[in-house]
Amino acid sequence: MKTAKLIIIGFGVIGKGFVRVLIMKHNEILKNHDIDLKVVAICEIDGSLVNEKGIDLESALKLAEKEELKKHNDWRSIKGLEVIEEIDADIVLELTPGNIKSGEPGLSHIICALKNGRHVVTSNKAPLALRFSQLHKLAEKRGVKLRYEASVGGAIPIINLYRNNMQINKIHSIYGILNGTSNFILTKMFEEDLALDIALKEAQEIGIAEKDPSYDINGIDTGVKLVILANSLMDKKISFRDVKITGIKEVTPESVELAKNHGFVIKLIGDVNKLEVSPRLVPLDHPLNVSGTLNAIMLDTDIAGSIILVGHGAGKIETASSLFSDVLDILRS
Amino acid sequence: MKTAKLIIIGFGVIGKGFVRVLIMKHNEILKNHDIDLKVVAICEIDGSLVNEKGIDLESALKLAEKEELKKHNDWRSIKGLEVIEEIDADIVLELTPGNIKSGEPGLSHIICALKNGRHVVTSNKAPLALRFSQLHKLAEKRGVKLRYEASVGGAIPIINLYRNNMQINKIHSIYGILNGTSNFILTKMFEEDLALDIALKEAQEIGIAEKDPSYDINGIDTGVKLVILANSLMDKKISFRDVKITGIKEVTPESVELAKNHGFVIKLIGDVNKLEVSPRLVPLDHPLNVSGTLNAIMLDTDIAGSIILVGHGAGKIETASSLFSDVLDILRS
Repeated sequence: MKTAKLIIIGFGVIGKGFVRVLIMKHNEILKNHDIDLKVVAICEIDGSLVNEKGIDLESALKLAEKEELKKHNDWRSIKGLEVIEEIDADIVLELTPGNIKSGEPGLSHIICALKNGRHVVTSNKAPLALRFSQLHKLAEKRGVKLRYEASVGGAIPIINLYRNNMQINKIHSIYGILNGTSNFILTKMFEEDLALDIALKEAQEIGIAEKDPSYDINGIDTGVKLVILANSLMDKKISFRDVKITGIKEVTPESVELAKNHGFVIKLIGDVNKLEVSPRLVPLDHPLNVSGTLNAIMLDTDIAGSIILVGHGAGKIETASSLFSDVLDILRS
Repeated sequence: MKTAKLIIIGFGVIGKGFVRVLIMKHNEILKNHDIDLKVVAICEIDGSLVNEKGIDLESALKLAEKEELKKHNDWRSIKGLEVIEEIDADIVLELTPGNIKSGEPGLSHIICALKNGRHVVTSNKAPLALRFSQLHKLAEKRGVKLRYEASVGGAIPIINLYRNNMQINKIHSIYGILNGTSNFILTKMFEEDLALDIALKEAQEIGIAEKDPSYDINGIDTGVKLVILANSLMDKKISFRDVKITGIKEVTPESVELAKNHGFVIKLIGDVNKLEVSPRLVPLDHPLNVSGTLNAIMLDTDIAGSIILVGHGAGKIETASSLFSDVLDILRS
């Protein structure tokens, strides 16, 4: 049996989802993979839980739900960077929300973890979109792994699908629907002939769109994910500023109707080859025509031809599937 | 650098496709994976090419295309079983077409290879559908691997997707379109209001359906693949005779039309939970509604939710992608 010590940075929706799934699956992972996964630290913005023998996760979750994490026996006032440097661990899970302009606070956490010889698994798009090559070079130099399956398609294991199972293929292009919120809105517009602002309001009411949905609507979120796909799967060496982005704001009910009458649907597509995010016509019977909050990513390859992967691009529990995919892959090798 | 010796049994469409891709990708595999893949034998029904230093694959392909394989310098009169026993190799690729009643000749090849301590990679459905547990027990006993990604979805890496990247998930159910020929026919019927026999004739004319298309039309091929999915991904321990199979013969233009008017399309669905193959209604906007010869497989899981993988379910070159996925995965561990 191998024991693997984890540090979790960020105990929001994604962090709690990961811990919830770990509680569910801990014994199964022990049985099937012979690995005892132990969380030795959970870091929040104002302090951390630290216990080198392993934190009691049930109590951590319960207190976090009541916003009383500080009452936990393992609470200490040290923060993420200090924890990464001082607490022995195999993998740091960087699960904070990232600021797309600075990449912080995730960027500093990831750099610190790699410098300290820890593997990193992250769901945080911003640091990767801003400093992809730099972070990879650092990981290579320190002989550790940097993995980020959860940053692109949520529960869709597109990066590992290619790396582990389609490794023989050269990718000609990658297209996809990478943002669930905008896809939900476009689906509503298509199915119920709604105007964008009405569809958006509905999305906000049922908790699919955030109060400030501008990153989703303006295509920024799709653009960031496109950068990660371009760099990780096609070695494009690009940065966020290289991507031409048009969001869905200008999509009108009339254009949706016109497209429909000609057998098309309008989707917000990220196109890696053209380094472009824009609303595009997709034939109704095309596999990329997925509805609601679903994401869909198409790889055009030289050997397997086109492969499309469809699934949930977000979700607190769903995303944990991708985080564990990375964690177990690191521990396997 | 690691050298891996391969024996290829069956030099038909799939075998030639594998060799063609190996010629294309040999140096890349050497560079990226540090593995020198060497084919030491290619076995046909009446004899084999054998060369322990590695067969010249270009000349083998050229002669095979002219049906003059016997003129190759490495041609010898020994056959598959003898080659497996006598020639040193790491992996046996069993790529013969399988008889669904007996599983032969693949079954004997696979048993012989496993008994002789060789890993096996196969595209051959029949032996797996008939003797899944027995073959796996034998592989385990001999400490070797038995892999069969190419047997189910052609180029779609559904088995390895789950095993390598969604390993944390429990699968609740698997549904899918697993046969390209019947999907092509149903698509034609839907799009062009054709009767089944007309659509079938067209499929035969353009080389999509075989002269005797009964395995495809009657749902047998889908049933066999369903058995492999049930056993490999859900540990169902079933055999082909446990599956209730209804093909597409009774699907009429009227039923297709009626479905269409209500927003549905008729697809031949393999349903692992119900152990059933049958024509079913699929909503037009459902990700399983894929057209032409495409296959689509949906995994319903406890953590990631539903994941759908769409791609080419067959093809001489496409299928090689899955064969290499298995070969490289075996050599990685």
